[in-house]
Amino acid sequence: MLAVGARRWVIADGYLPAWSQGPAPEFTSHEAACILNAGADPANLRLTVFFEDRDPLEYALRVPAQRTVHQRLGELDDPEPIPPGVGYAYVVESDVPVVVQHTRLDSRQSANALVSTLAFHATEETP
Amino acid sequence: MLAVGARRWVIADGYLPAWSQGPAPEFTSHEAACILNAGADPANLRLTVFFEDRDPLEYALRVPAQRTVHQRLGELDDPEPIPPGVGYAYVVESDVPVVVQHTRLDSRQSANALVSTLAFHATEETP
Amino acid sequence: MLAVGARRWVIADGYLPAWSQGPAPEFTSHEAACILNAGADPANLRLTVFFEDRDPLEYALRVPAQRTVHQRLGELDDPEPIPPGVGYAYVVESDVPVVVQHTRLDSRQSANALVSTLAFHATEETP
Amino acid sequence: MLAVGARRWVIADGYLPAWSQGPAPEFTSHEAACILNAGADPANLRLTVFFEDRDPLEYALRVPAQRTVHQRLGELDDPEPIPPGVGYAYVVESDVPVVVQHTRLDSRQSANALVSTLAFHATEETP
Repeated sequence: MLAVGARRWVIADGYLPAWSQGPAPEFTSHEAACILNAGADPANLRLTVFFEDRDPLEYALRVPAQRTVHQRLGELDDPEPIPPGVGYAYVVESDVPVVVQHTRLDSRQSANALVSTLAFHATEETP
Repeated sequence: MLAVGARRWVIADGYLPAWSQGPAPEFTSHEAACILNAGADPANLRLTVFFEDRDPLEYALRVPAQRTVHQRLGELDDPEPIPPGVGYAYVVESDVPVVVQHTRLDSRQSANALVSTLAFHATEETP
Repeated sequence: MLAVGARRWVIADGYLPAWSQGPAPEFTSHEAACILNAGADPANLRLTVFFEDRDPLEYALRVPAQRTVHQRLGELDDPEPIPPGVGYAYVVESDVPVVVQHTRLDSRQSANALVSTLAFHATEETP
Repeated sequence: MLAVGARRWVIADGYLPAWSQGPAPEFTSHEAACILNAGADPANLRLTVFFEDRDPLEYALRVPAQRTVHQRLGELDDPEPIPPGVGYAYVVESDVPVVVQHTRLDSRQSANALVSTLAFHATEETP
């Protein structure tokens, strides 16, 4: 299968819920960047995380060929964790085409809530 | 990082839930326009809010360079607040490229519900 | 404001939940086609509803200039109502550009669930 | 009506919840690939399912002309079922234009959660 997708993706609504209810790990509140690399070459990605009141942070990620990675964003820790309970946004840049979808499971109340959004693929960029 | 996104975005389903359950401010029912300005220049935005049975309203908003703003729509008050419990829609216009995503947290019942939608970026506009 | 959007939109997952919990009308389970007509001319729309095991049905709808309509799909009745509890899909065609977003509120269990999806705008059609 | 949509679609966040609460079949946790074939010819589809730690699997599916199919992904069984409780992703390829939307109903806790996402249509592919 050929590589499919785009090399730059954007999620504007990130928010790590600060607590959880229900059995771990399934019901631990979290956000995941779900990335598909359908192509024959590994994907090397840079995630740039933007905040409301501080400078951006950069993270590195790798997705093997013909694999998906569902990366929990609260588990990134290099250079430092994304703090819970604050709004953020992020840009994913890849050296090969990938597809990025963002999902949040919020179990702060007695029944979990879910959101999932296809990221914006920045083909239409206007520098 | 270069500016990324588009200069016009549309959300067709706005609705501010009229009441809440659970601790404030996390579980106060709300809608947020989540905007990323990844570029080097501040973004000056105009939000035009459309209703089912009255003329549109216009609001101004600013997003600093390399920052995200998660603007709660129920907190806009100039020229006047968007009323809760009615359907609305809105168009975001920016002087630099941004990305817009819309999220609703509805805590009117005992467990919260969440929706989040990437806005329509109006590149394909057909005047 | 100029007209914004596209003339053809598609939702592939329609499903009217067959019952509700909580006070009406806010918590009556429903689906809505949320349509924005930001332009200066009224929009005349045709909705074609597709099913799994029967022929399509067609409905007419009108959205005034500079207005949004959040049309509950379960309230369409000409030529006949869409039955609850079955999967369907629909295509919206408009004579002027509009934006279409689809939302479901499912209150069949004790707390409501919400989904909202920007429709597919069929610019990329390949006849 | 003309065929509408695209011939390749991608969902990056698949996850079959491993258990359910509430009456079957409505509240059985599931994911569905909702596909609309609005055109005059049947659609023959190939679904390629990608995992985090094993090679992809391929499934075949058919959508009649002018019909929608809401295929529960947990019911595919040739060559083998998709296992519950693990992250996956999938690519849909069709011989005629279709529209694909992905929905998850998660009833593992006392009230169901819903997500639905338009798939990425791979027009912008960069091989």
